[in-house]
Amino acid sequence: MPLTKSVPVVFYFATRSYPPIRSNLIRNTVGINPRLGIARKIGKQRKKPQTSSSSNSVEEVETFYYTQRLDHFNYRPDSYATFQQRYMINSKYWAGPKSSAPIFAYLGAEEPVDEDINVVGFLRENAPQFSSLIVYIEHRYYGKSIPFGSLKKAMKNANTRGYFNSAQAIADYAAVLLHVKERLSAHTSPIIVIGGSYGGMLASWFRLKYPHIALGALASSAPILYFNSVAPQAGYYYIVTKDFKEASESCYQTIRKSWSEIDKVSKMPNGLSILSKTFKTCSKLDNSFELKDYLDSIYADAAQYNEPPDYPVSVICEAIDAAAKKTDTLGQIFEGVVVAHHGNKSCYDTNEFNLPTETDIGWRWQSCSEMVMPIGHDRDDTMFPPAPFDMKSFVNECRSLYGVLPRPHWVTTYYGGPDLKLILHRFASNIIFSNGLRDPYSSGGVLEDISDSILAVSTVNGSHCLDILEEQPSDPEWLVKQRKTEIKIIKGWIAEYQADEVALNKQVHQ
Amino acid sequence: MPLTKSVPVVFYFATRSYPPIRSNLIRNTVGINPRLGIARKIGKQRKKPQTSSSSNSVEEVETFYYTQRLDHFNYRPDSYATFQQRYMINSKYWAGPKSSAPIFAYLGAEEPVDEDINVVGFLRENAPQFSSLIVYIEHRYYGKSIPFGSLKKAMKNANTRGYFNSAQAIADYAAVLLHVKERLSAHTSPIIVIGGSYGGMLASWFRLKYPHIALGALASSAPILYFNSVAPQAGYYYIVTKDFKEASESCYQTIRKSWSEIDKVSKMPNGLSILSKTFKTCSKLDNSFELKDYLDSIYADAAQYNEPPDYPVSVICEAIDAAAKKTDTLGQIFEGVVVAHHGNKSCYDTNEFNLPTETDIGWRWQSCSEMVMPIGHDRDDTMFPPAPFDMKSFVNECRSLYGVLPRPHWVTTYYGGPDLKLILHRFASNIIFSNGLRDPYSSGGVLEDISDSILAVSTVNGSHCLDILEEQPSDPEWLVKQRKTEIKIIKGWIAEYQADEVALNKQVHQ
Repeated sequence: MPLTKSVPVVFYFATRSYPPIRSNLIRNTVGINPRLGIARKIGKQRKKPQTSSSSNSVEEVETFYYTQRLDHFNYRPDSYATFQQRYMINSKYWAGPKSSAPIFAYLGAEEPVDEDINVVGFLRENAPQFSSLIVYIEHRYYGKSIPFGSLKKAMKNANTRGYFNSAQAIADYAAVLLHVKERLSAHTSPIIVIGGSYGGMLASWFRLKYPHIALGALASSAPILYFNSVAPQAGYYYIVTKDFKEASESCYQTIRKSWSEIDKVSKMPNGLSILSKTFKTCSKLDNSFELKDYLDSIYADAAQYNEPPDYPVSVICEAIDAAAKKTDTLGQIFEGVVVAHHGNKSCYDTNEFNLPTETDIGWRWQSCSEMVMPIGHDRDDTMFPPAPFDMKSFVNECRSLYGVLPRPHWVTTYYGGPDLKLILHRFASNIIFSNGLRDPYSSGGVLEDISDSILAVSTVNGSHCLDILEEQPSDPEWLVKQRKTEIKIIKGWIAEYQADEVALNKQVHQ
Repeated sequence: MPLTKSVPVVFYFATRSYPPIRSNLIRNTVGINPRLGIARKIGKQRKKPQTSSSSNSVEEVETFYYTQRLDHFNYRPDSYATFQQRYMINSKYWAGPKSSAPIFAYLGAEEPVDEDINVVGFLRENAPQFSSLIVYIEHRYYGKSIPFGSLKKAMKNANTRGYFNSAQAIADYAAVLLHVKERLSAHTSPIIVIGGSYGGMLASWFRLKYPHIALGALASSAPILYFNSVAPQAGYYYIVTKDFKEASESCYQTIRKSWSEIDKVSKMPNGLSILSKTFKTCSKLDNSFELKDYLDSIYADAAQYNEPPDYPVSVICEAIDAAAKKTDTLGQIFEGVVVAHHGNKSCYDTNEFNLPTETDIGWRWQSCSEMVMPIGHDRDDTMFPPAPFDMKSFVNECRSLYGVLPRPHWVTTYYGGPDLKLILHRFASNIIFSNGLRDPYSSGGVLEDISDSILAVSTVNGSHCLDILEEQPSDPEWLVKQRKTEIKIIKGWIAEYQADEVALNKQVHQ
């Protein structure tokens, strides 16, 4: 689940992320070829802020490579193999090794880390007031941090893919951060880890597993409860639906009835030609599912990245509603597609969410091995046709794709999940779970405070990972406030840590 | 590091454990063939309590096997291989699935778990008052929980040995415990994990890594600070020395000067024959080191397992001192050897600490891969000749034995270590670190409270793992009190947990 969306070809759909299972589910239901774990990117650039004061269009970072162990949890000779892991440092604001100024560490997720640097502003925007060092670390098997020579080689067989998982990734982060501290003699600098989406899960898990390395974590839009059915399977699409319904009841009704309209037309003689023409598809539709899946992706994407100032859900709904007077249901739906793309295109590519990017390739494997989020449409009260998550066919598909079985219980076994409040109320500390409640993934997020220092910072109108993205002059007050709250909390952690240090030193010297 | 010592052939030296590196160090210094990671057992039975009321001589347990994953942290096809992991259940005292009564889980260490059941009394002695279920789980690669068919096969090459490590072992425990809860419908039962020595480290690490599975941990004599030089390398032998010095200054002086006496005699013509005769060795000594290493082992062992009511250190010192009038220094030392064995034997086997038991084989590998405790004699104020730990030769020896490099930094990277108080003061909860301060391993233990619920429970006169061993009618008051304190703390955790549960349920239903 990458963080953002952006400009070039398709404006709203860049660095976007899907519920990895969703489309697959529909396909299962509709009975077409299976597809798994999609986390696609169409275009890379997020719209740049016009006059943002603190951010640079290109951040001044130095790139380094760390010789990383392939397998932290095994002592087979091949576990000792290494790969070069990329990390980047911005020391522009840092007060230096003796200052004990903090380190902000961005934990990369399922994309090349340099892409994130372009859109994530939280670290560089706040580094000056903390005089902090910034470290961005790339996740193994993405970007330039790929073992076995190339992504193709690394992914080609089960033996080389096996090392590609979250426990290894956070152990990598532990090793890199200790190395950075050592190299820069920054032993007394507390580390705050920051991540978004899957990277947000990693940040919270990192604080839980490596509290001796990270003092605290900002986990933005981290759906850590979307595993092993801790959160309801239908939560994601329930929120997509809610977003549209709140934007416009008539828009919601139009979408809700459009699916059967599509089915009806598709069953007519030349039905697929008619649909292809209505939706100006770049190539003729092979079946009605292809179109439904495309529309589903557009709606989910708009809801997930329903960012100010434009709010794609509103933009789509306004177009759908406005077209009511001049066209029929499917004509209205098409107007939504047009504005989702920011205007007329010569044709619309129903495969635009299925381009096999590195992220797509990597995340599909991760979803099929351990990041099993059972997301389905199984409520009557969504605007989508029912399509419950089917674990059995998911497992079969993964096995046929990768030859190994998914482990849907492993995330909760290793990281926890059920009874989170009961368990963490008196254990752990210093985690911010930030969410925007309009983000469908917030349905798997931590939305209430767990203790005095494990805090939920939610915004009613926020979308996916909005708080850690670059500040924009147009940012609404609630977003500015959310970020300020987060910074205040982090400042509190650091102050408390430093006070503890002083108190302990006094004890030792007494 | 097994827990106890016992009867048959050699009374004081059963299920004993060495500082894994110690002898090796001396050998390095003396320049003889290297030997690594010894955790040997001579005989298995601890002296049985005569009239202990609550313990059974054979505990009523049922044995089960869990189909355990070979590698929790990898998705290679061979990671999916499984082995049968043994665990045992005593449900005699359990109040049943609906009671929410706790589960006491003993985390096995580097020995077959059924051996521990014979000597560890803490769980069954306290189960009645908690109405708790007892689970004993065997550590992978020991006892009947060995992958690849047999220990010989499992240990024969680097590929099959690689899965033998602590992170995998505690992940095993997580899986077994979730399985047991599921199988017995014990979802609401909090788990307290208990272990001693290496098993005590595992217990504390388990609570840190899997707080969602274990509510608390009793870590008896767990030297978690003896890694990566967090604790001083000489700590172990400093305490051995202190134990002897406190027992008798003249005994300490006699031992202290005996090493050069041995060297002196060994350099005489027929010196080794003389030494062999003086010490009644079963076969002629090959060199003086062999004898010195044997004596070193006897002293370390006596200190580590310096249990009431006999207190082997005192027994040895009394014999050494008493012989002063009738013999010379080496004659005195020999009298110590005799009483250490509880009386005259026809001959003394200087290899008795080097028998290749399963524990020895397993722990040598563990010490050479990740459990690298840099224990040396490098202080002038010990009664041993200086022999600092030499990491370089240690690494070389491990490489030549196993073909892979030790990872001396991994334990502290994964589990932490430095600045423990600063880090855990506001993170984590519910761990008891119990120690006996006469146990040389207490030099790597946690000896002061870290927070209100991470507590050190030490006794001035205690030895290794004494608190969790079976109660004896002769147990001194301080030991009885230590156990009571531990039980009181554990009761507090459970009461608090249950109160939290009630409070949370109220919140949910409000």
